[in-house]
Amino acid sequence: MQLICKKVLDMGVVNNHPRFFNQLYTSPDPVALLAEWISTISNTNLHTYEVAPVFILVEMEMLNHLKQLVGFKVDESDGVFSPGGSISNLYGLLVARHKAVPYAKEEGLKGDEKLVLFSSEQDHYSLKKMASSIGLGTKSCIKVECDEMGRMKPLLLRNKIKEAISNGQRPFFVNATSGTTVLGAFDPLPEIAQICKEFNIWFHIDAALGGCVLASSQYKHLMNGCSLADSISWNPHKAMGIPLQCSVFLVNHKTILYDYFSTKADYLFQQDKLYGEYDVGDKSLQCGRKTDAFKLWLTWKAKGTQGFEHTINKLFQNAESLRNQIKSTQNFYLVLDNPETFNVCFWYVPPQYLPMGFQAPQKVLNLSKTLENGRKVHQLTAQIKGLMQKRGNLMVAYQPLGDKPNFFKVCMNSPTATSEDIKFILQEIEQISHILLNHSSL
Amino acid sequence: MQLICKKVLDMGVVNNHPRFFNQLYTSPDPVALLAEWISTISNTNLHTYEVAPVFILVEMEMLNHLKQLVGFKVDESDGVFSPGGSISNLYGLLVARHKAVPYAKEEGLKGDEKLVLFSSEQDHYSLKKMASSIGLGTKSCIKVECDEMGRMKPLLLRNKIKEAISNGQRPFFVNATSGTTVLGAFDPLPEIAQICKEFNIWFHIDAALGGCVLASSQYKHLMNGCSLADSISWNPHKAMGIPLQCSVFLVNHKTILYDYFSTKADYLFQQDKLYGEYDVGDKSLQCGRKTDAFKLWLTWKAKGTQGFEHTINKLFQNAESLRNQIKSTQNFYLVLDNPETFNVCFWYVPPQYLPMGFQAPQKVLNLSKTLENGRKVHQLTAQIKGLMQKRGNLMVAYQPLGDKPNFFKVCMNSPTATSEDIKFILQEIEQISHILLNHSSL
Repeated sequence: MQLICKKVLDMGVVNNHPRFFNQLYTSPDPVALLAEWISTISNTNLHTYEVAPVFILVEMEMLNHLKQLVGFKVDESDGVFSPGGSISNLYGLLVARHKAVPYAKEEGLKGDEKLVLFSSEQDHYSLKKMASSIGLGTKSCIKVECDEMGRMKPLLLRNKIKEAISNGQRPFFVNATSGTTVLGAFDPLPEIAQICKEFNIWFHIDAALGGCVLASSQYKHLMNGCSLADSISWNPHKAMGIPLQCSVFLVNHKTILYDYFSTKADYLFQQDKLYGEYDVGDKSLQCGRKTDAFKLWLTWKAKGTQGFEHTINKLFQNAESLRNQIKSTQNFYLVLDNPETFNVCFWYVPPQYLPMGFQAPQKVLNLSKTLENGRKVHQLTAQIKGLMQKRGNLMVAYQPLGDKPNFFKVCMNSPTATSEDIKFILQEIEQISHILLNHSSL
Repeated sequence: MQLICKKVLDMGVVNNHPRFFNQLYTSPDPVALLAEWISTISNTNLHTYEVAPVFILVEMEMLNHLKQLVGFKVDESDGVFSPGGSISNLYGLLVARHKAVPYAKEEGLKGDEKLVLFSSEQDHYSLKKMASSIGLGTKSCIKVECDEMGRMKPLLLRNKIKEAISNGQRPFFVNATSGTTVLGAFDPLPEIAQICKEFNIWFHIDAALGGCVLASSQYKHLMNGCSLADSISWNPHKAMGIPLQCSVFLVNHKTILYDYFSTKADYLFQQDKLYGEYDVGDKSLQCGRKTDAFKLWLTWKAKGTQGFEHTINKLFQNAESLRNQIKSTQNFYLVLDNPETFNVCFWYVPPQYLPMGFQAPQKVLNLSKTLENGRKVHQLTAQIKGLMQKRGNLMVAYQPLGDKPNFFKVCMNSPTATSEDIKFILQEIEQISHILLNHSSL
């Protein structure tokens, strides 16, 4: 047994290593880890107060704290922890659909609603997937173009809404992304809120990544306007040191979770039961739920908001430090000069693949897959990542984006990364590229 | 911090206590607990092979083992671990809907499909909830009556399907329950499979509770016919000692998960990535997923199928032992003489509330809420449970069922319950009822 466990950990990717920058989860905070272990020992279930009185009160307190952070009134809003950001976005779509077409809960969609939703072209793919799941189809998710920073353009949103209305469609939901998956961009919330108000559309924010900035007085301005939302998804398992899974759905309507989800199953939510009024299982998509709020709550007790603020500020500092190194290191170029969050996106471009008209000391590039040199960089990036996986010293992500060829993305996910770890990123990529360029016909 | 943790555990309900019979989760198997802790330390994510190679292979091996247990061909079926039984049932509905109306993935429901599904009146409430979530409405879930044991009547199913067709509706999904929530009944799978085949309807089994019998050669006959299903939900966190959450969705179609769920997000499932062909995140409803398969896998390695067989057989023995005690103890009466699984359902009925025509030594009753004595028992049962909660020595569930007034339900959930623990159940209820009957105007 010991041998199996050791092998599982030895042969796996060390996701909790400070040089794992591949995604926004990494080494958990020790307090959060302890809390998760306690949860597992108690093995309880967030459906009824009779079985989980303490954990239900903890979830309630944690939800109230998060409501205050986003600016919802505690007594006029609600929330629920969910198994992840995709499901939290599903919650948003379901309750928004319920507000738009309340008969659908019982009667189903009639098909003549022609409900459509809007989200940026750089949003998380779960919006489209969940639009399909709730019966609207992926095509009901209308994509809005972004500016060069990756932020949805409000003017285009307004135009697309008007266009949809004139096509006989019914806009019912706008998703703004706070912290896009690749560039880490924050959509302009006040402008989007204004448009939603004007057209009477549900305003949802996917802040799976970006919610964490609310803990930092220096960076919370990125989510200015979030209090105007109807609902918000936020994953504390991203960049906040809380182990998977920890995601929360907050909704700025007091009773809509119960209104939509309640089925009044009388084997579980008995009306004549002592303390039955504290049961929370009848307002959720799931029946049983893990006690995911507890690890966030205990960590908050231990670190305080200041502790989280320190973490978040450190991630921004580390990102800036890496961007500065990129600017001063040969062959590395930024995709964005001043991105809004701590994702650092960059290319490794050997001199022979630099674009026409390139002039030193330019350190921000705009490559295109439609050009030969862009395609070469596209291919080289994937090859570097492939060899990186085999060497096992470092993990950073890569992806294309629209017209842009593959580029690297470093997710600053933990304050435990040292300046040595950050320096190592460029060193390792440089070294791998030398191996590849000297041994291939690229 | 230590104080908070101690308080949380001290003030909570001890769900892992051998006298916690309230639900089908309780004290986790130590190996499963260890595995969950290892998962949390590694904090990885079942979406891409690059970040979770070992855990993805573990999930694959575990799925293959479970496929064999249910009788699916390993290479012609698929599966995914999910956050719980409700979500597993949602998977079933989504892929069945995709098979019935493949255009809906992109185009959405047109409303003229008039899709309907069938499930027993004693099924889990998630069927209705998820029917609503996918856009069909709760009314699309047509309930089929059960026999006195709680099993769906196949003849009535056939009639209701024919009736729906003649009403212009399109039956697309039948849910059979293996182990109903209250009585623990197993719907007759071969007959239901035959009907589904005849009418070309997706055959899903909700074996959240009942799947565990497949580990026991003595009891696996209860799920005879399950290999004929199109899909199966099974929660190893019920009665198998695996801590929450551990639920699996198995589907007897090789590619339908990818066909329906895939969105080809190129920031995560890059086509040019090393080992990208092993990624599993593009066939799931969620984006990130916990490594829930690992705790089941490690426990299976440790206990073997024989170990699980011993556990399951013990639960059946304990249930029989409790039923025998009920038969030999004054004022206790069974709801069912020979239930199919290890839920034990019974009433506490003081002599003054016995029904007309009662004759000793009758030990199985059929009470009704429509009669005065039934209403008294209904009320007394809830009061006993209320005081039980306050005393904190024992937890058993209670609920009404159709016309039947509230009765107690003991979930035999752990082989660690001793004969003393089982004897204690009736003693505690007896004692509480004496307190109540001596101090109230009942």
